[in-house]
Amino acid sequence: MAHKRKSKYRVSKKGLPPGSKIYTGHHPEDNVTVDVYLYNPASLHHRTLHPEQVKSESDPDHFRWINITGVHDGEVIKNICEKFGIHILHQEDIMNIFQRPKTEEENHYNYTVMKMVIWDDEKNEVNDEQVSFFLTRDTLLTFQEREGDLFGPIRERLKDPNAKVRNKKIDYLFYLLIDIIVDQYFEVVDKLGEKLENLEDNIISRYDEMWLTEIQSNKKDLILMRRVTYPIREILLKLMRNENHLIEENNIRYLRDIYDHTIQILDTIDSYREINVSLKDIYLNTVSHELNKVMKMLTIISTVFIPLTFIVGVYGMNFDVMPELRWTYGYALVWCIMILIVIGLIVYFRRKKWL
Amino acid sequence: MAHKRKSKYRVSKKGLPPGSKIYTGHHPEDNVTVDVYLYNPASLHHRTLHPEQVKSESDPDHFRWINITGVHDGEVIKNICEKFGIHILHQEDIMNIFQRPKTEEENHYNYTVMKMVIWDDEKNEVNDEQVSFFLTRDTLLTFQEREGDLFGPIRERLKDPNAKVRNKKIDYLFYLLIDIIVDQYFEVVDKLGEKLENLEDNIISRYDEMWLTEIQSNKKDLILMRRVTYPIREILLKLMRNENHLIEENNIRYLRDIYDHTIQILDTIDSYREINVSLKDIYLNTVSHELNKVMKMLTIISTVFIPLTFIVGVYGMNFDVMPELRWTYGYALVWCIMILIVIGLIVYFRRKKWL
Amino acid sequence: MAHKRKSKYRVSKKGLPPGSKIYTGHHPEDNVTVDVYLYNPASLHHRTLHPEQVKSESDPDHFRWINITGVHDGEVIKNICEKFGIHILHQEDIMNIFQRPKTEEENHYNYTVMKMVIWDDEKNEVNDEQVSFFLTRDTLLTFQEREGDLFGPIRERLKDPNAKVRNKKIDYLFYLLIDIIVDQYFEVVDKLGEKLENLEDNIISRYDEMWLTEIQSNKKDLILMRRVTYPIREILLKLMRNENHLIEENNIRYLRDIYDHTIQILDTIDSYREINVSLKDIYLNTVSHELNKVMKMLTIISTVFIPLTFIVGVYGMNFDVMPELRWTYGYALVWCIMILIVIGLIVYFRRKKWL
Amino acid sequence: MAHKRKSKYRVSKKGLPPGSKIYTGHHPEDNVTVDVYLYNPASLHHRTLHPEQVKSESDPDHFRWINITGVHDGEVIKNICEKFGIHILHQEDIMNIFQRPKTEEENHYNYTVMKMVIWDDEKNEVNDEQVSFFLTRDTLLTFQEREGDLFGPIRERLKDPNAKVRNKKIDYLFYLLIDIIVDQYFEVVDKLGEKLENLEDNIISRYDEMWLTEIQSNKKDLILMRRVTYPIREILLKLMRNENHLIEENNIRYLRDIYDHTIQILDTIDSYREINVSLKDIYLNTVSHELNKVMKMLTIISTVFIPLTFIVGVYGMNFDVMPELRWTYGYALVWCIMILIVIGLIVYFRRKKWL
Amino acid sequence: MAHKRKSKYRVSKKGLPPGSKIYTGHHPEDNVTVDVYLYNPASLHHRTLHPEQVKSESDPDHFRWINITGVHDGEVIKNICEKFGIHILHQEDIMNIFQRPKTEEENHYNYTVMKMVIWDDEKNEVNDEQVSFFLTRDTLLTFQEREGDLFGPIRERLKDPNAKVRNKKIDYLFYLLIDIIVDQYFEVVDKLGEKLENLEDNIISRYDEMWLTEIQSNKKDLILMRRVTYPIREILLKLMRNENHLIEENNIRYLRDIYDHTIQILDTIDSYREINVSLKDIYLNTVSHELNKVMKMLTIISTVFIPLTFIVGVYGMNFDVMPELRWTYGYALVWCIMILIVIGLIVYFRRKKWL
Repeated sequence: MAHKRKSKYRVSKKGLPPGSKIYTGHHPEDNVTVDVYLYNPASLHHRTLHPEQVKSESDPDHFRWINITGVHDGEVIKNICEKFGIHILHQEDIMNIFQRPKTEEENHYNYTVMKMVIWDDEKNEVNDEQVSFFLTRDTLLTFQEREGDLFGPIRERLKDPNAKVRNKKIDYLFYLLIDIIVDQYFEVVDKLGEKLENLEDNIISRYDEMWLTEIQSNKKDLILMRRVTYPIREILLKLMRNENHLIEENNIRYLRDIYDHTIQILDTIDSYREINVSLKDIYLNTVSHELNKVMKMLTIISTVFIPLTFIVGVYGMNFDVMPELRWTYGYALVWCIMILIVIGLIVYFRRKKWL
Repeated sequence: MAHKRKSKYRVSKKGLPPGSKIYTGHHPEDNVTVDVYLYNPASLHHRTLHPEQVKSESDPDHFRWINITGVHDGEVIKNICEKFGIHILHQEDIMNIFQRPKTEEENHYNYTVMKMVIWDDEKNEVNDEQVSFFLTRDTLLTFQEREGDLFGPIRERLKDPNAKVRNKKIDYLFYLLIDIIVDQYFEVVDKLGEKLENLEDNIISRYDEMWLTEIQSNKKDLILMRRVTYPIREILLKLMRNENHLIEENNIRYLRDIYDHTIQILDTIDSYREINVSLKDIYLNTVSHELNKVMKMLTIISTVFIPLTFIVGVYGMNFDVMPELRWTYGYALVWCIMILIVIGLIVYFRRKKWL
Repeated sequence: MAHKRKSKYRVSKKGLPPGSKIYTGHHPEDNVTVDVYLYNPASLHHRTLHPEQVKSESDPDHFRWINITGVHDGEVIKNICEKFGIHILHQEDIMNIFQRPKTEEENHYNYTVMKMVIWDDEKNEVNDEQVSFFLTRDTLLTFQEREGDLFGPIRERLKDPNAKVRNKKIDYLFYLLIDIIVDQYFEVVDKLGEKLENLEDNIISRYDEMWLTEIQSNKKDLILMRRVTYPIREILLKLMRNENHLIEENNIRYLRDIYDHTIQILDTIDSYREINVSLKDIYLNTVSHELNKVMKMLTIISTVFIPLTFIVGVYGMNFDVMPELRWTYGYALVWCIMILIVIGLIVYFRRKKWL
Repeated sequence: MAHKRKSKYRVSKKGLPPGSKIYTGHHPEDNVTVDVYLYNPASLHHRTLHPEQVKSESDPDHFRWINITGVHDGEVIKNICEKFGIHILHQEDIMNIFQRPKTEEENHYNYTVMKMVIWDDEKNEVNDEQVSFFLTRDTLLTFQEREGDLFGPIRERLKDPNAKVRNKKIDYLFYLLIDIIVDQYFEVVDKLGEKLENLEDNIISRYDEMWLTEIQSNKKDLILMRRVTYPIREILLKLMRNENHLIEENNIRYLRDIYDHTIQILDTIDSYREINVSLKDIYLNTVSHELNKVMKMLTIISTVFIPLTFIVGVYGMNFDVMPELRWTYGYALVWCIMILIVIGLIVYFRRKKWL
Repeated sequence: MAHKRKSKYRVSKKGLPPGSKIYTGHHPEDNVTVDVYLYNPASLHHRTLHPEQVKSESDPDHFRWINITGVHDGEVIKNICEKFGIHILHQEDIMNIFQRPKTEEENHYNYTVMKMVIWDDEKNEVNDEQVSFFLTRDTLLTFQEREGDLFGPIRERLKDPNAKVRNKKIDYLFYLLIDIIVDQYFEVVDKLGEKLENLEDNIISRYDEMWLTEIQSNKKDLILMRRVTYPIREILLKLMRNENHLIEENNIRYLRDIYDHTIQILDTIDSYREINVSLKDIYLNTVSHELNKVMKMLTIISTVFIPLTFIVGVYGMNFDVMPELRWTYGYALVWCIMILIVIGLIVYFRRKKWL
């Protein structure tokens, strides 16, 4: 259900000291897994470690990508983070999965938090998941909420010794991961576009009270998409200023490329929001039209039969003196009159385009 | 009732000299109580004083938190304030509980006014209460409207000699109090989120004229929440500039953390406002749908029985010559025809999805 | 009527030279009266003069407040203004009572124009009146449209030798007058708040086509209030920059205090506008609900009686062979059936919550 | 018709070289007339010339105002413009009567284009006409679309040797013309105000489908007024910066005066737009109310007569055993019952305020 | 159909390395054609080449315009682009036909991407097509999606040795192409204006459920037009800053001229959007009015015949004692009464303007 997003998005931690690491998400049962990739142009080592096995010292010959999956266990996160000198407030941010996307320059690292979005084919709606990045000179730490395969293609590409990523520094990997996240936004927005298109066809062809619920669900999804995409602009502008010099100068244009994509996505989202409003208008018009049709039907039936019923009522009266009743063709005449009235009314309604 | 907020929010003080200390709130009968906390890493002294017992001189070895509860008695407030050299216009601000949240740098102190929000479980709505802070080098004065336990957890934490607050300066306590106020906003916004969720379920399942009143009450609460939260951003930005150097440089990042939370709360409030508008749309659709159902029922009944009534009317006529009346099976035939008409109409309405 | 405000708000002066002093208000019949207050800490002199008696030279020992009531007579205004070297365009502004609130720094004076608002208890709506201020080193000229007692409390306070105003310079009097004008906004906004509250109760309890007219009248009043209040912000910001040094440095904080009040009033106006929109929604819902109730009544009556009428119609037919008519208990049986139908329908409508 | 404004507002000149002088207005048949005014404090010469007679050299003792009426003939305009060294793109702008109001500083002249608005009393709507100004040290060129008398009062004033305009430089004349154009906006906005007032009275007193068309026509007029007025602000701000020093320093305050008027007009237009939206709401409410009245009438008639018809139907049945039919006072009793039912229903509807 | 625009606007390229040249448009079957124009004041050479024949070296005596039609073949585009040293991300932009209009300064070239709009007369809606420009000192590369004749007039003008374009540098050609694209916007906006005008006439004269669909389609077209026009402003502002000095200083005023046109187009689009909203209001009013008419008809018929049917029912009763039935003129009297009732009701409805 679309409600999920609205519910408990923050456990009450009032009264606890700041930096309290309390997980605010829904997957506390998963295990924390750590994937370490050590790579240079010549070699790639991949190991899956137990959280406690993670070492803070880096290997001077390799760049290192440490991907932690599962952010529910405060102790584990704290242990890992302390090894890398991550500030206590950032530790809190990792676990608070309702963090607004942002980037912050620390002394020796850059902290960036973004949202991945996934299209849920079953429920036909958008889900989001938080990713935290810690970028230093030679190491990239990423924290994901749960097991997923969005970064799969990057892992594949890392295996190819000729891939650009193997021949560039760690900031290029950072760029690739952001790029794949934003590309995913395109796909999800695309799905929403398809949904809008289908909905438009449905609304026009058939009246169903349910359409409004779908329109509102689209609205929620578009609000969500806007909320996760909008802050990416600021993040990229800040990264492009490159205050910590963690990003190579000639890689900044790649960030500008993502920036352009973000603007494009926001433009599309805004168009879709306007289209969604149009769909609501069309739907409401269908409702009015439906009522008009019902009322026309009632009016036609009433206009035809109420006068006829009056006529037959007239000749049901019991007056002693009612000469028509005595006529031989009286009955036939009444039928003729009534048929003429019906024909006249049908012609009238045809002219009015009611029939 | 939600009206409270709209009523008399300022007594008419036109014509009185500026700085007139006139209480604008609703609790003039409460006593003013003063809690003084003297603390350093080694010791904590807590005393509850009579307002007149408050001394302006501070103890050089301790930091001091003076919490005044009750702001209705102009004389009392004036006495306390004058001891601490608080400007007459700020004295007025303490008592005017409709003050907009703001912060101002004075020569020797910082004056900050904010709103605490409390979820009223009974009336299912938001209440707000004003808090004024005066921060100097070694003393923090807080003025609350009434007895409450929002600051309770901080009092508890003060008792713990190992707590960070005991080992830091007075500005850290100031930060903690602001933090707990803003955390409370999260909880209240959360409650509103739940209320929206329940309301959505209700609106979809059952038509009730009352839903609109609830939607409007949510709207008012969201306006209130936005009104108390929005100025917090400016307050924090101003505090972070730290013009008076009352805040330690390495504590400023804690303020930035609250700033991020404020943005997050505002984002959520804006989403909720949009969702609330959606609920209104869904509700109004329910109203139209209800009307459509009523009209369909009327139309079906009329369409079925008006023609039948016409038919039986025909054979109620008293013409001398009505051969059908003489037939043995005339009556049975009429019934057959009428039953066929009814079946035909039922099939027709089924096809139209009216039945 | 609320229309007044919309009507002729500027006489056509096209083709006349600029600076033409043509009165644009509605009170040309009033006399112009001039009140002069000469005051210093030691003494206060008050005289009511004929316009021609006003002298430009000031008394070096006193501050002087000249309050002119009535701005309809171009010649009189021109005579007074020329004595004080007021620019011809400002003379025009005094008489054009549709001037937007603004402040302008002239070589030797500051010109400020604002609106006073008065709650008209009879018509239950807001009226506004223009006030022009000319502040020099030792003299304050004020031009009011008509006799009124808004400045009464200030006059009273002037009589008190211990009052701050007597012991401060002329700019403090200027501040006091602005303050009392803005305080009046609070009162009027308060009245509007009360009106909204009453209206809300009325709309919920009873349907009346008139409510919409009231909602629209509130809307107009709120637009007016916003229009007179909004420019005050700019005026105060400009006065606080104090380019002409006509205001004492330590009085500027009083202006900031009014500035805060202005923001607070604008906040309240904006909330009230949103609440007024809510009232419109509630009202429109009442209209729909009213229609739904009417249609339900019609549907219930029709659903109950149309089938019954059909049944009695059946036994009004004149077929020779209608065995039921011959049965002894036929008539009673038909009644039983009809009563059962009615009971069944009542139960049905009860379940549907229509009854 | 209001449509005019929407139609062909630019002939297709795609593919022609830039600066192509193609007239885009509707009056190609008018003649081009040129009025030249030479004036100094001592004398005024007015001649009406043929376009070819215009000389570029100015008379060193006089200021010169050249007013060209009719901008449809590209050749004529080109000839005049080239004499004064007007850039080819500005020549194009003169003829493109859909130019947005703007001002541009050229080396030796200032080019300003504005819209005059005229209230069309017959069609009860606003028309606009473009005016182009070219201001040099000693000459003012004005291009009008067609003969009109808006500048008449200025012409009159020029004849008066004591008029300020005769004793000031050419920039003062430029100011006067702009001032008279903006004053005209006041008048037109005033007319719209009157129209809104009348419409409000009409809508409240009587339902007519036509009101909506009028509301929409007001909306269009207000959009037009806003569109011509809004850019005037920028024009005046730019003129006040006076980059070319074509305007005397002490005349700049006159421009500020017009600037204030522009703000005031925009304020009024915005209020009128909101009032126009209110009128739409009131109108739509009238429509709903009308429907409610119709439905109430139907419901009352049905509720009264359908049960009565049922009763008389009962005693139209032909059962052998119907004891009531045999009673002497049966018929009278039925009438009594029916009259009681009617009275009961009337009381009921009165209580419900339906009658 | 208007849907086209919504569908698949980006093929999923997630996981591919950045700069992947994947065509996102709908015309993969077209051939790529290359038109090369070499021109100087004295001569013009035009050749249509095979993509592989394009040479990077320019002819020092000529300016060169290379127009490539068809952007679907990644290999072909890559080959051409590499010859001219176009960055890999710009290569990707050429093929991604959903690029937002933008301009970017590269070391040795300027890259600008814009949208051409074409009015589809058949479907009566707007289509857009992407054009990419690469401007260097002596060469202009343009990439179009498909064969079209929008640039035809420029080609014609190039043939004329006296044309300005032949005697100016390559940046003037660049300006001409942008100018013709923006002029095309005028035409399309004009078509939309006509469509709105026709629609308004239709809506007023006749009720048809289809009008809403047309209103929504206009809305989509206006959103599209705004989306393609809005970024042109930024593009022109950036080009006018002329950071790469690729544009001659005295040609910059031509860009400002286009800039003014863009503002004018945006103004018109905004007016049209407001007019389109008005049309929706008028349409919805027609729907309500239609319902009102239907209900009035039903009410009139019911009000007239239901009481009459009651009356004739009365005299269909079979009471033994019904004196009226025995009267000679009873029947005639009943007819008279009924006719009087009908006349009375007709007069009543006439007065109410229902008939």
